[in-house]
Amino acid sequence: MGFLLAANGLLVLYISINAFRLYYGDDWEGLFESITGYGLGGSSMALFGRVGGGIYTKAADVGADLVGKIEQNIPEDDPRNPAVIADNVGDNVGDIAGMGSDLFGSYAESSCAALFVASISSFGINHDFSAMSYPLIISAMGIIVCLITTLFATDFFKINNVSEIEPSLKRQLLISTILMTAGIAIVTFVALPSKFTIFDFGDQKVVKNWHIFFCVSIGLWAGLAIGYTTEYYTSNAYSPVQELADSCRTGAATNVIFGLALGYNSVILPIFSIAIAIYVSFSLAAMYGVAVAALGMLSTISTGLAIDAYGPISDNAGGIAEMSGMTRSIRERTDALDAAGNTTAAIGKGFAIGSAALVSLALFGAFASRAEIKTVDVLTPKVFIGLIVGAMLPYWFSAMTMKSVGSAALKMVEEVRRQFSSIPGLMEGTVKPDYATCVKISTDASLRKMILPGALVILSPLIAGTFFGVETLAGLLAGALVSGVQVAISASNTGGAWDNAKKYIEAGTSEHAKSLGPKGSDAHKAAVIGDTVGDPLKDTSGPSLNILIKLMAVESLVFAPFFAAHGGLLFKWF
Amino acid sequence: MGFLLAANGLLVLYISINAFRLYYGDDWEGLFESITGYGLGGSSMALFGRVGGGIYTKAADVGADLVGKIEQNIPEDDPRNPAVIADNVGDNVGDIAGMGSDLFGSYAESSCAALFVASISSFGINHDFSAMSYPLIISAMGIIVCLITTLFATDFFKINNVSEIEPSLKRQLLISTILMTAGIAIVTFVALPSKFTIFDFGDQKVVKNWHIFFCVSIGLWAGLAIGYTTEYYTSNAYSPVQELADSCRTGAATNVIFGLALGYNSVILPIFSIAIAIYVSFSLAAMYGVAVAALGMLSTISTGLAIDAYGPISDNAGGIAEMSGMTRSIRERTDALDAAGNTTAAIGKGFAIGSAALVSLALFGAFASRAEIKTVDVLTPKVFIGLIVGAMLPYWFSAMTMKSVGSAALKMVEEVRRQFSSIPGLMEGTVKPDYATCVKISTDASLRKMILPGALVILSPLIAGTFFGVETLAGLLAGALVSGVQVAISASNTGGAWDNAKKYIEAGTSEHAKSLGPKGSDAHKAAVIGDTVGDPLKDTSGPSLNILIKLMAVESLVFAPFFAAHGGLLFKWF
Repeated sequence: MGFLLAANGLLVLYISINAFRLYYGDDWEGLFESITGYGLGGSSMALFGRVGGGIYTKAADVGADLVGKIEQNIPEDDPRNPAVIADNVGDNVGDIAGMGSDLFGSYAESSCAALFVASISSFGINHDFSAMSYPLIISAMGIIVCLITTLFATDFFKINNVSEIEPSLKRQLLISTILMTAGIAIVTFVALPSKFTIFDFGDQKVVKNWHIFFCVSIGLWAGLAIGYTTEYYTSNAYSPVQELADSCRTGAATNVIFGLALGYNSVILPIFSIAIAIYVSFSLAAMYGVAVAALGMLSTISTGLAIDAYGPISDNAGGIAEMSGMTRSIRERTDALDAAGNTTAAIGKGFAIGSAALVSLALFGAFASRAEIKTVDVLTPKVFIGLIVGAMLPYWFSAMTMKSVGSAALKMVEEVRRQFSSIPGLMEGTVKPDYATCVKISTDASLRKMILPGALVILSPLIAGTFFGVETLAGLLAGALVSGVQVAISASNTGGAWDNAKKYIEAGTSEHAKSLGPKGSDAHKAAVIGDTVGDPLKDTSGPSLNILIKLMAVESLVFAPFFAAHGGLLFKWF
Repeated sequence: MGFLLAANGLLVLYISINAFRLYYGDDWEGLFESITGYGLGGSSMALFGRVGGGIYTKAADVGADLVGKIEQNIPEDDPRNPAVIADNVGDNVGDIAGMGSDLFGSYAESSCAALFVASISSFGINHDFSAMSYPLIISAMGIIVCLITTLFATDFFKINNVSEIEPSLKRQLLISTILMTAGIAIVTFVALPSKFTIFDFGDQKVVKNWHIFFCVSIGLWAGLAIGYTTEYYTSNAYSPVQELADSCRTGAATNVIFGLALGYNSVILPIFSIAIAIYVSFSLAAMYGVAVAALGMLSTISTGLAIDAYGPISDNAGGIAEMSGMTRSIRERTDALDAAGNTTAAIGKGFAIGSAALVSLALFGAFASRAEIKTVDVLTPKVFIGLIVGAMLPYWFSAMTMKSVGSAALKMVEEVRRQFSSIPGLMEGTVKPDYATCVKISTDASLRKMILPGALVILSPLIAGTFFGVETLAGLLAGALVSGVQVAISASNTGGAWDNAKKYIEAGTSEHAKSLGPKGSDAHKAAVIGDTVGDPLKDTSGPSLNILIKLMAVESLVFAPFFAAHGGLLFKWF
């Protein structure tokens, strides 16, 4: 899946550029302006995948758990539960389609941002096609590196034991990062001239090729740092999740308090990593630097997506094992795979958020260049109100997506309860439940409930740009970016940690875990409550924020000339 | 309490100014630069009150509830519970001392920010003492207005029924706001010349006196809007809390999900109110406008604090009624008073946060003026990394304060459990528990556990200013401000709403509430879990953020000349 996505994105982009060249000829600035539409398309699709998919999967999951596990006391993924099919389908819809479209959007947008800035820099002005193609070449190198990395897992280091899975997936990430650093060096010194200029908000900045090497590499390594931090906070091999599990002794309330605090704590290191990456790339090569840093982080996307997809695949495998009535030992093995999968899925989300932050900043810079803004000064009222309202948008958006999941889940609960009470023989397993109605509830909810959050994302930049002008819009984008990243990281990690704290108690592999368990103990019940709270946080509202910050930025970029020419109506009137 | 605080603040400030005049003579700029130290003092004290007090009260509260209500099944405030004295003392320490010192800090800082900007504007340059004293005169007028407002509650509208309390407290707020608007008009046209200039980041901006009238008034009315929005989201008379109570049907998890979403939703209107107040006051009279808008919001502080203090007073009255074994009917009445008090306390917190936002912005502006920064451009790497790291600080800080409460509460739980199991006759009520040890645990925890969050607040601006320079520090302050406001409002309102959802089920005054209750039902148990989660959010981590954003700003203001001259070491070295 990782390779397919990366290769497809690259291919379509390459074809589009060449097709547009037939029309634009030598007008490269016009050509790469049009290409920004590709990014907008990528992110709009991601809106459906992440928001709609997130609502779909969690409505089914929460609904299935609340009635099945808590009220009827039947195991997870039991075929008697009418919502079980919707739940398993949802794992794919949200975690695979959603994550894929999200990362694809990031990939498309960072390439477009880099290409647009390059087109108004010396590459574009001098019509240097190989230097112009540098963003695409990095991604192509990334695919080759990830192919080599795969061999390490399949041929060089054989895995014989379930406990080796998580370290092995982590090692893959490290190997791909080290190899890719060499790959970047090769690509940079071959494709780029030793000295050139980059557009820097009105000026042309002189840049050397080894500057660009640093920009791409720092993005790549920041991604690794984010991935490893995420793992530390969400894996049950380390103290944060073990302490969280321990807090279940005093009930669900302390579990929720400690979980929220854990999520808040987990933003510190990723934000420092992102800040360092931004500082270095921004200082060395302005917005082009930030865009290629994002591409650097995404260059190991094939390995990253493979690691991420591992989670929902093993989750579904467990579901199938349970539903088809396989033996206990198989289910135990899939559970262990699933716990490792939870952590790797959290790592994937960390990557997605980190790259979304860099991508949005690059798009924000491209927007400022296109709207011909030279400064975005916080010490002006127009920018400051944009900043504070922008920082509020992630909260508004999260409130919408969380309530969507909540109300869709309540509908699902009612339907599942109705089936258990009205279909005779269902609990005994002699009659099959009506799976289709539950699938329909999730599908309808995911489509209907994404209208409002979708409208918020799409209309906010349009309203800000049209009525308040480009300065307020620039403030809005910056505010949404710096606040959204925090909410997204903390929500994803809190959810992942709660899920694994529950799995830690269930597995009971250490003395400490045994003292909290077994399944059904008070501590375990408290852990299940935390897990259920975390579901919409980690799979719906958290990752959806990536789309909020990216889509708003790319939309502003596309409409920048319009806002610059006709925006700010409200201030014109008064 | 409200009057004492406002009058004291005003008196001390007046005396300080006159005392400093003996030393500085005609150097008003130097004089009012020194006065900023008053603001720093006010906020440092608030750090103890809010953070230390918040940890004290919630460690006791959560600890008392977890063992008393949940494990031993004895009522709240039962004298057999060893932590009950610490809990009742805590209500005062956190909600009265904390809130008072917080608002006092805001008051001192906004006055100092206004005075400092005035000293470098035409008022100071022309030595116009009555115009210079305008910020103090507004506050003096506020005291008079609040005195008149009090008569409405005590003499004009008599209250005969418990259900009239909440509307009456709300009416007080409205009356004081309307009267104060007239008061501002009088003061403005008497004290200020019709035309003058205000310092605007290097320039002198021409301002008319009616501009200033608008600045102060919009701050005042924004405060009312925030208060009323807060009431809507946290009072059990409206649909948000009733829906939240309803979500307890499906357990604690849905209660927590809906509660978090409610808190996120509740930031929307306050942020728009603050943004409008900032836009108007900033556009009309630069940072002086923002500072006097903050003073406008705080001008009804005496009424606001009275309304706020109402909460902990009725809470403690209930505690005393329970402990002294008074009849059931008295306890029912104090419970009704307490529910109204929860909402008014939330209104007070809304005011505190709103004014903190305006105050920090005014201080931020004063800092920029003193450090001689003309623009804070987001499109530069130094500012942007400050912005994103600043937006992260509220999360780091909240994680610290929440964990402090959690671990102090766990210690309290152990002590209470120990006493119940080792003191014979305690449960029967024949032997008194050892209250003093519990008080000591809370006291020690509140002092020891505030070191780390306190260090974070105090060191962050010092590190940013010294090593990264004034641009990064400016970004840091802006980021912490726009992100901290959201976290603070949502945390306070989520907590208030959970508390009242629980009270709504317990009171059972409507058909809907009865269907969820009575005490001890599954829905009620779910509501208790939400309430316990909300305790540290609404009384520790949320309100402490006010201190974070204000103290960082005032500290930067005080050290601005040092940072401007010697800061940015890291960038100088590389």
